[in-house]
Amino acid sequence: MTLACGIDVGGTKIAGGVVDEQGTIVDQLRVESPAEDPAAIEHAIVELVRQLAERHDFSAVGVGAPGYVAADRARVLFAPNVAWVDVDVKGDLEAELGVDSGMTVVVENDANAAAWGEFRFGAGHDVDDLMLVTVGTGVGGGLVLDGELYRGAYGVGAEIGHLRVVPDGILCGCGHHGCFEQYGSGSALVREARQIAANGVPAAEPLLARADGKVDAIDGPMITAAAREGDAFALGRLAELGRWLGAGIASLVTVLDPAVVAIGGGVSEADDLLLEPLRESFGVHLPGREHRPLAEIRRATLGNAAGIIGAADLARR
Amino acid sequence: MTLACGIDVGGTKIAGGVVDEQGTIVDQLRVESPAEDPAAIEHAIVELVRQLAERHDFSAVGVGAPGYVAADRARVLFAPNVAWVDVDVKGDLEAELGVDSGMTVVVENDANAAAWGEFRFGAGHDVDDLMLVTVGTGVGGGLVLDGELYRGAYGVGAEIGHLRVVPDGILCGCGHHGCFEQYGSGSALVREARQIAANGVPAAEPLLARADGKVDAIDGPMITAAAREGDAFALGRLAELGRWLGAGIASLVTVLDPAVVAIGGGVSEADDLLLEPLRESFGVHLPGREHRPLAEIRRATLGNAAGIIGAADLARR
Amino acid sequence: MTLACGIDVGGTKIAGGVVDEQGTIVDQLRVESPAEDPAAIEHAIVELVRQLAERHDFSAVGVGAPGYVAADRARVLFAPNVAWVDVDVKGDLEAELGVDSGMTVVVENDANAAAWGEFRFGAGHDVDDLMLVTVGTGVGGGLVLDGELYRGAYGVGAEIGHLRVVPDGILCGCGHHGCFEQYGSGSALVREARQIAANGVPAAEPLLARADGKVDAIDGPMITAAAREGDAFALGRLAELGRWLGAGIASLVTVLDPAVVAIGGGVSEADDLLLEPLRESFGVHLPGREHRPLAEIRRATLGNAAGIIGAADLARR
Amino acid sequence: MTLACGIDVGGTKIAGGVVDEQGTIVDQLRVESPAEDPAAIEHAIVELVRQLAERHDFSAVGVGAPGYVAADRARVLFAPNVAWVDVDVKGDLEAELGVDSGMTVVVENDANAAAWGEFRFGAGHDVDDLMLVTVGTGVGGGLVLDGELYRGAYGVGAEIGHLRVVPDGILCGCGHHGCFEQYGSGSALVREARQIAANGVPAAEPLLARADGKVDAIDGPMITAAAREGDAFALGRLAELGRWLGAGIASLVTVLDPAVVAIGGGVSEADDLLLEPLRESFGVHLPGREHRPLAEIRRATLGNAAGIIGAADLARR
Repeated sequence: MTLACGIDVGGTKIAGGVVDEQGTIVDQLRVESPAEDPAAIEHAIVELVRQLAERHDFSAVGVGAPGYVAADRARVLFAPNVAWVDVDVKGDLEAELGVDSGMTVVVENDANAAAWGEFRFGAGHDVDDLMLVTVGTGVGGGLVLDGELYRGAYGVGAEIGHLRVVPDGILCGCGHHGCFEQYGSGSALVREARQIAANGVPAAEPLLARADGKVDAIDGPMITAAAREGDAFALGRLAELGRWLGAGIASLVTVLDPAVVAIGGGVSEADDLLLEPLRESFGVHLPGREHRPLAEIRRATLGNAAGIIGAADLARR
Repeated sequence: MTLACGIDVGGTKIAGGVVDEQGTIVDQLRVESPAEDPAAIEHAIVELVRQLAERHDFSAVGVGAPGYVAADRARVLFAPNVAWVDVDVKGDLEAELGVDSGMTVVVENDANAAAWGEFRFGAGHDVDDLMLVTVGTGVGGGLVLDGELYRGAYGVGAEIGHLRVVPDGILCGCGHHGCFEQYGSGSALVREARQIAANGVPAAEPLLARADGKVDAIDGPMITAAAREGDAFALGRLAELGRWLGAGIASLVTVLDPAVVAIGGGVSEADDLLLEPLRESFGVHLPGREHRPLAEIRRATLGNAAGIIGAADLARR
Repeated sequence: MTLACGIDVGGTKIAGGVVDEQGTIVDQLRVESPAEDPAAIEHAIVELVRQLAERHDFSAVGVGAPGYVAADRARVLFAPNVAWVDVDVKGDLEAELGVDSGMTVVVENDANAAAWGEFRFGAGHDVDDLMLVTVGTGVGGGLVLDGELYRGAYGVGAEIGHLRVVPDGILCGCGHHGCFEQYGSGSALVREARQIAANGVPAAEPLLARADGKVDAIDGPMITAAAREGDAFALGRLAELGRWLGAGIASLVTVLDPAVVAIGGGVSEADDLLLEPLRESFGVHLPGREHRPLAEIRRATLGNAAGIIGAADLARR
Repeated sequence: MTLACGIDVGGTKIAGGVVDEQGTIVDQLRVESPAEDPAAIEHAIVELVRQLAERHDFSAVGVGAPGYVAADRARVLFAPNVAWVDVDVKGDLEAELGVDSGMTVVVENDANAAAWGEFRFGAGHDVDDLMLVTVGTGVGGGLVLDGELYRGAYGVGAEIGHLRVVPDGILCGCGHHGCFEQYGSGSALVREARQIAANGVPAAEPLLARADGKVDAIDGPMITAAAREGDAFALGRLAELGRWLGAGIASLVTVLDPAVVAIGGGVSEADDLLLEPLRESFGVHLPGREHRPLAEIRRATLGNAAGIIGAADLARR
């Protein structure tokens, strides 16, 4: 049984896990992320790996990083949340771990790693072509095509959150208008609910009351909880999010034709309250639906662990 | 030197060619397409193949068909222009050619075949990841990813013309609103030029004069010719088409990250009058352009022959 | 009690009525419209007026015409449905009726006439500022501002159906993209329901069954009837229409600030099935709703008679 | 010769002028605006009026206020920039000025006052129906219809900047998506120029160099100056602004049918660099242009003084 180590680098936390060949995390650690200091993050990763290596035997380390990872699977080109701009993460980590450690490091985009995790051990374990859509702060994505992780020519593919879905639409943090994640993310869900409540629309009043009348206290889990209890406005907001996701996924499926689309990320906790309208919208918007097999929309099964599991498995191969 | 036969099945014509290993068409035939009769098209293809086989020695036949081709590369699921709905084209053709002929048939989507042709012998010969965008009556596309033709899980991927680019936009023949090909195709170019002329906009008058005052006589080659001679309205129309294409391609590159995007189809005859505004728009709309290698936008080099060449080469492999 | 005659000129019918000072139609006639022959329509109107004049005593005739009526209330600039292009309808009718008849004719845009009718005797009888929105084949509108019919500087105002609500949207018969009536009319309701049914979306099946499986047999009254019986798809379609109307009306109210918006036209038969989602959408989309009195959304009360009643009353003044 | 006093209340300045019957400002004062204190603004206005009254003889005072002014021309319902929410400005000012002063105060929306100024003495002096469009931080508007200032049923009409022009578009300060002023204002001009420069688009480099490489130093006057010197990017940005304005004005003219549209506000300083593309876009987007007189697009002539002149004239009547 070969173990491998997977690291998930986030803007606020760094999580590391030791993963076996069945995709089970046998041990796990988590530290705060010194996100504003590029070198400190690397030190923190090395420290995490060393602690795990004291307790388990592995030599392959997969690092999932948020941002553009070069096709060499070594350099991070641009990862704004962790202050890495053109950093040789593989080289730095292997040097600091030392040749004697025998460790080899592979760097992957975090959403790609998660897609690989879901493909090997989760929602896509039974198909060759999987698209993972993570619905959280943004909309992320990863593609497994013909059984291989798809990275693109330069390593920066699968950025589905920046598909333009509305010309001249909402301005995105990426500097462009109308990106998918401005309509299909958890942030969009919260932004719209707050805005409508702030506009004094009566339908939003029960949700606003939950937030003690403070518009800015409305958040995603609150909307999901209200929807579960039957709040019509909250249900409507989740349905609207599902409609945007379904329409966007229909466009992506038109281009990519996967067998399964797995929906992960924090908002997927809303489960069928989100997935039912998403599936309906997907079915309404997919061109040629009567003449083609329909991709199946599933909820992702690995949760937050997908990135660690996928990164470890990719490193092991 | 192994020869192979490529067939390009269109709504009005069927073209067949014998292709060598360098991608050169050494012989070629063309017949009218009996498009409304599914069986007659198969007979016509067999006839074409037999005529070519009398003059050349080959056993592999690649058929490029417009529409959804199943992942088995045998059945056409839906090809409205040639009246094929769930037809085992491979089986039918091989049966009619006869076992004794030794012929094996492979069926591919025509745009996929063209993409493969450009990948092997044309605009993408030097890269591993190519997206072909054909700008003609519609917008078609083909993908070569990691050196392999990408067909999707069910064979129906790369339908980039039906990416939704405008919510609640123009109604497409596919039954959906706002498809890319309603904004980025040659048909869109002509439709808009005619409409603006019909609305009595003075700027369109020189082009309308070219068409002897008949709005419906305005066509794509006329617009390109006028643009070449400096007609400001025609140049503006090609630039507008280029802007839509550039923005759509930016979305696709965000997802697919190819090394090269090749622009083919009839409207690519306008060359830099289309490609310059397309490239500029692509550069303006691509997220993260400062932190990623930019895909190169090239004109496709094989013209109409790409489909025949690609189909033959795919059959030979 | 002064009577007046009102004429409503349509593409298929010409209706005439004798109207008293309380806005009651005391007598009424209707003939087929020879819509393709501009002169024949004028003859038919004269004939109608003469028949009514034999039975009642009036000297003022108001003609409501579909299209652009000049500010002189005499000439019709452009009325495609009745083949009038720059016709002096007032002059022609008065000449044909003869000086001896003592008849004076006033020409008004038909939607303006209907708005005036609703203002004087219908949904806007108690306010000074009324916008009438007619939801039928198209979206029409009429404005009464500060107690006066608003015609615009050139007589062609209040064409609310051609407000652009979606850039690069659906192509309208007027030659432009994204007009309000492409989203908010009865035609839009039917077009979308048919399209979704044609796309094979399961939710549309009960409605399609009502139409005996024939997509083109789906029409507006069928959708309304299905909605009344609880068909979820039909209800959803009316709600979607209401959302577009509510959003468009919010834009118009932002500019025009009327006290009442009256909703007329054939689709207003759906009553609260349309008006409830319309009102909700209006409330969601109106800027500054907490700091301004909200215009009241009412159903128009005069039905098809509004045009005759309004035209007669305008002629009498 | 009856003089009157006009006051223009802004977020940063309060300007007062004494205006004669020819619309000439014979004397003028300006003070800082204590914008965060509603009562202090009223004191400052009274102080201004008293100073002017010492030097000139007038009894009518017109106050132009940014925000919703009630139909009674006394109360300000909502004026976020000057902290007035439901304030009886007329009553407060008249009380503080004292009955003995003989002063009567009329409150108008500032853009309405400016429209009236342009109608009486400026760009609309020769017509009965004028729409003023001010292109500055936002997009403001005022309407004179049939020779009367149009206030709406509740005093809050003519808010053309909040016409929805892009569904699901950019979020506006008013709490809604896709408002006209997010696309057609000077703020939009600057926001887009900065964003494109920040995205690293080469065409923006000369403009960015003017701003010493600091994206945030790009402002409207800089763009206009660069355009005057032939900078292609700056010209393109003004043309894009003109296209949005022309399309939006085409929608408004479709509804309102004015004889003249006057373009004022700070960005109108760009003159034909803005107005030419605006006029062209207006002509392209106006429905029925061949069958209707075209509203004339003129530059406003009174500049910043329009509000003072208009407020004074309205008070005098």
